Amino acid sequence: MKKVGIVMGSDSDLPIIRKCTDMLASLGIPFEVHVYSAHRTPREAGNFARNAKKNGFGVMIAAAGMAAHLAGAIAANTTLPVIGIPCKSTNLDGIDALLATVQMPTGIPVATVAIDGGANAALLAAQMLSIGDEELSAKLDAKRASDAEKVLQKNAAVEAEFNK
Amino acid sequence: MKKVGIVMGSDSDLPIIRKCTDMLASLGIPFEVHVYSAHRTPREAGNFARNAKKNGFGVMIAAAGMAAHLAGAIAANTTLPVIGIPCKSTNLDGIDALLATVQMPTGIPVATVAIDGGANAALLAAQMLSIGDEELSAKLDAKRASDAEKVLQKNAAVEAEFNK
Amino acid sequence: MKKVGIVMGSDSDLPIIRKCTDMLASLGIPFEVHVYSAHRTPREAGNFARNAKKNGFGVMIAAAGMAAHLAGAIAANTTLPVIGIPCKSTNLDGIDALLATVQMPTGIPVATVAIDGGANAALLAAQMLSIGDEELSAKLDAKRASDAEKVLQKNAAVEAEFNK
Amino acid sequence: MKKVGIVMGSDSDLPIIRKCTDMLASLGIPFEVHVYSAHRTPREAGNFARNAKKNGFGVMIAAAGMAAHLAGAIAANTTLPVIGIPCKSTNLDGIDALLATVQMPTGIPVATVAIDGGANAALLAAQMLSIGDEELSAKLDAKRASDAEKVLQKNAAVEAEFNK
Amino acid sequence: MKKVGIVMGSDSDLPIIRKCTDMLASLGIPFEVHVYSAHRTPREAGNFARNAKKNGFGVMIAAAGMAAHLAGAIAANTTLPVIGIPCKSTNLDGIDALLATVQMPTGIPVATVAIDGGANAALLAAQMLSIGDEELSAKLDAKRASDAEKVLQKNAAVEAEFNK
Amino acid sequence: MKKVGIVMGSDSDLPIIRKCTDMLASLGIPFEVHVYSAHRTPREAGNFARNAKKNGFGVMIAAAGMAAHLAGAIAANTTLPVIGIPCKSTNLDGIDALLATVQMPTGIPVATVAIDGGANAALLAAQMLSIGDEELSAKLDAKRASDAEKVLQKNAAVEAEFNK
Amino acid sequence: MKKVGIVMGSDSDLPIIRKCTDMLASLGIPFEVHVYSAHRTPREAGNFARNAKKNGFGVMIAAAGMAAHLAGAIAANTTLPVIGIPCKSTNLDGIDALLATVQMPTGIPVATVAIDGGANAALLAAQMLSIGDEELSAKLDAKRASDAEKVLQKNAAVEAEFNK
Amino acid sequence: MKKVGIVMGSDSDLPIIRKCTDMLASLGIPFEVHVYSAHRTPREAGNFARNAKKNGFGVMIAAAGMAAHLAGAIAANTTLPVIGIPCKSTNLDGIDALLATVQMPTGIPVATVAIDGGANAALLAAQMLSIGDEELSAKLDAKRASDAEKVLQKNAAVEAEFNK
Repeated sequence: MKKVGIVMGSDSDLPIIRKCTDMLASLGIPFEVHVYSAHRTPREAGNFARNAKKNGFGVMIAAAGMAAHLAGAIAANTTLPVIGIPCKSTNLDGIDALLATVQMPTGIPVATVAIDGGANAALLAAQMLSIGDEELSAKLDAKRASDAEKVLQKNAAVEAEFNK
Repeated sequence: MKKVGIVMGSDSDLPIIRKCTDMLASLGIPFEVHVYSAHRTPREAGNFARNAKKNGFGVMIAAAGMAAHLAGAIAANTTLPVIGIPCKSTNLDGIDALLATVQMPTGIPVATVAIDGGANAALLAAQMLSIGDEELSAKLDAKRASDAEKVLQKNAAVEAEFNK
Repeated sequence: MKKVGIVMGSDSDLPIIRKCTDMLASLGIPFEVHVYSAHRTPREAGNFARNAKKNGFGVMIAAAGMAAHLAGAIAANTTLPVIGIPCKSTNLDGIDALLATVQMPTGIPVATVAIDGGANAALLAAQMLSIGDEELSAKLDAKRASDAEKVLQKNAAVEAEFNK
Repeated sequence: MKKVGIVMGSDSDLPIIRKCTDMLASLGIPFEVHVYSAHRTPREAGNFARNAKKNGFGVMIAAAGMAAHLAGAIAANTTLPVIGIPCKSTNLDGIDALLATVQMPTGIPVATVAIDGGANAALLAAQMLSIGDEELSAKLDAKRASDAEKVLQKNAAVEAEFNK
Repeated sequence: MKKVGIVMGSDSDLPIIRKCTDMLASLGIPFEVHVYSAHRTPREAGNFARNAKKNGFGVMIAAAGMAAHLAGAIAANTTLPVIGIPCKSTNLDGIDALLATVQMPTGIPVATVAIDGGANAALLAAQMLSIGDEELSAKLDAKRASDAEKVLQKNAAVEAEFNK
Repeated sequence: MKKVGIVMGSDSDLPIIRKCTDMLASLGIPFEVHVYSAHRTPREAGNFARNAKKNGFGVMIAAAGMAAHLAGAIAANTTLPVIGIPCKSTNLDGIDALLATVQMPTGIPVATVAIDGGANAALLAAQMLSIGDEELSAKLDAKRASDAEKVLQKNAAVEAEFNK
Repeated sequence: MKKVGIVMGSDSDLPIIRKCTDMLASLGIPFEVHVYSAHRTPREAGNFARNAKKNGFGVMIAAAGMAAHLAGAIAANTTLPVIGIPCKSTNLDGIDALLATVQMPTGIPVATVAIDGGANAALLAAQMLSIGDEELSAKLDAKRASDAEKVLQKNAAVEAEFNK
Repeated sequence: MKKVGIVMGSDSDLPIIRKCTDMLASLGIPFEVHVYSAHRTPREAGNFARNAKKNGFGVMIAAAGMAAHLAGAIAANTTLPVIGIPCKSTNLDGIDALLATVQMPTGIPVATVAIDGGANAALLAAQMLSIGDEELSAKLDAKRASDAEKVLQKNAAVEAEFNK
């Protein structure tokens, strides 16, 4: 299976990345994690993206806050699908990162997930990889069913308390 | 190749969808287009999503405005990757559709592109399909190079005017 | 009297729902509470709404955060009046849930109350049920008078401190 | 059947109110329309609300823009359900009217619909009145089915063009 | 001297009102404080405003949060100048109260100060009363000079630390 | 009677200022108008404010757009009450001017009216001047009654059309 | 004198850039203009920035809209001062470009001017170059005085009309 | 070398200014710090700016919150480049200060950095001073390389943990 390449702009984004790697690991999807800043180490970020296809990556994930350029900078240097995670920083509640990640110009899309959406970025990467992978596709269906089951268990608990 | 399933919530979104289908057609990617509203025809929208895998779809694209639930409603009924296009309506400049599309809860990601980003939704779908398709991957690289060439031609024109 | 059907998208919304059920209970209005996610359990959410009329419900209340589709998903499956409570999540102060709940397209209204407005959702449901119920209507007038009385008591305390 | 009382803060809101009255008329629901400003004629607005119950009204609808107090002012003077339509004005795209209408304090709910949502306000009023009215309830179900049919006709047209 | 009439919509606004009354007291300006809610006690709020002129008030101050209608409701019932203090509530950082206070329609102005600006509301009231009151005008000039002096003392301390 | 001093930051604000001067003229209030930019002519703006009291002004009105500093700059140089009109510019719908005008620090209030609220600035100035002027106070009451009358005439027209 | 390097992300930004080049030309400051997209031609944008110092540039100006990464991408590749012009696009009124330009992480500042602020970007560049250039510094002072004179002429015209 | 003149509107901004002075000190750049409020001490703020050129300053930095006029007030009184730091206050997350700082009118630019961006303001000042100073320019390049090195060290740590 092709690998997922994960890049964060700063190691302060690590808690969000851990949700991402936990999800990928639980699905048996190989991945690599790096800290490359679009602004402090633009060359390394660019190189990682430019070489991603030939290094066996299938999907890229980039997480950054504030004027969050990282996902866009990765997307500018590869035609692999790139998932952007806008991270909340000290101010503005993440709206700056969301707009800087999602409002990409025609030609260079970034698949943006919710603010701080580390787990969903992993799931979205898995969905992309599952297009040509029946086994992974079935795993995702099973996880979906299991998630639904958890909601129904909570529903049962709530029903037991409220609906007598 | 697997098909791209395109759904719009209202035929007023057709101009944005045409940018999407034009791009897919130019890349030789098969697709189907439907008008299913998450609110007015929830059953049809759900059925389309639930049967998408077995009907040969690989990626879903959903475009909607205002309280834009369509992409999320599709994503709730399939584990195929779902791309959401938030559409600008009469008021609020599309920020309502953007937030209603991107802020999905854990477990059900939507790959959100820019407001009214029809062409980028198609490109993102193509990138997803290209993960296991060398030919499409090469086409995307060629298109990227051609897009860059167009910028450089514009640059040449601007340089000719300004930098004597 | 017809019942109020209450649905929350996640049991993390329970504190807001308790304000809602406390208010309904204090008014003697029967209700049922469920946890059905528009995204994780769309079928159950849809079924609950589709069967609501014949199961004796008169009003529906739905509470959800982020890309809050739940109230809209309920409204898409019944013509009973649906009250939406936008819930504040970790980021964006609830503005995402507010816009995703209130900006519904023509044909499928959602009666939206304030962010985290659990008690007001219950009161609004009671007002709806009171249209054809003189006794409940009188109870609401009495509660209104009692609320006013509490303000006037606070006014008296403030006047005693400040206006000598 | 009880009447719907419609109030607009200014006759510049008339185009939005016409969508509201057209919908009510099409459903055979009796209504009255008034221009009462919460700020320029507070006494008349208050009197209309205070006497609404005894004058045979079942639901109130109020439309206003900018610092849109009208729905709240009506709600402060009756315990009938009050539906608020936030109207877009020259500036700020209606977000001022939306927040001024929906963010009501505990005790005085306003059932808020989308910005400029005149038709949906009427439908919501009809839904409220239908709680105890089987005939109106059936009409609303029929209208819903007809709306769905229109979407499916548009879908057929789009399918005919795109999916050969 | 004419009195300042202060109204808060809820006694939870008392900390902001205390900044207001402290400032008025320090300037020797008479005032009265009341808790009248525009929504829970509309009649009392209206009566207070309608009788304000003949009861010796010269300026009104109203503080409220969320869909902050109080200042507008006071202004609707008197032609005395009304100062509005938008108060921050649990959500939305006070932007709802700001817009609901400041965006008044033509004919009924509210003199709006900053979010939670209790002290400035008092100063503004004093400035209004000082138009025809040389002594108060001189007091305000003296306070301004003293405020400037405090800044210059802080400047001296900062200069001593940084500029050697 | 004391004069109203009106300053605009740019003559592009003249249409808004005309609404202001028309209202003042209709109330018989003397005024002066100037174009002084807080940024391009800070000295003249400051001098005008510093000399305002001794030159017979009672209230100041300042209109500006974008980073609207003018009202604050006037307020910094006089203790007369200063009314700020935030003007909408090409971008951002006036929200920049609103925040730059209203969010003043403790000690230097600006009485802010609605975006582009020229007429209301004049009315607010008149209200301030009326505190010690029975005749002007009566004029304002008469104008309020006349405004109400106009609403009621529109109401009569609307009632005639809709309520048969 | 060192040159100003101007980069726009798309030639649709040319009208804003012309205001910039007109201002620089009027001040006799040499400049070069290029079209390099941070996303479509990241290599050319990076090379231009990396070689800017040795090619005789003293200040860089970058204009871009939407997820405006260009100024940040230039700043990431040079330690020359970089001025960012956020450009308004079809949606969101330029707030996306503003946040994506100004909210840069520690270490890589971008000197951001107002939305669509082409002329001010040129003036700011001139101010930077004037630090070590008395002649340019004097020119800027003369231009400032001339700008003030224009305001005072407009003031004279307004005074002639209004203040008789 | 010319000095950097730093002004804060209130000593509550001191923590942000310390990041600024620490950075300048680490680069060996001389500076002066002052507390001058645009509103409470407009004369001192203006004088400091008007005399800055002749007192040996090359760049000005101004930090303020809320209706942050300080940077604009400094810029109005000198043609030296002025850097504005919008500071977050109790409410609104700094968006008020950002808009009040950056949205300057044509003729008077303010080089705005991120909300609370004290260190970046210092770096930007250093970049401006480095235009004619090879030694400082080299220092900035060295610091940039060192910043990149720190990112790469973090990258190494992350790689060691995740990529086995």
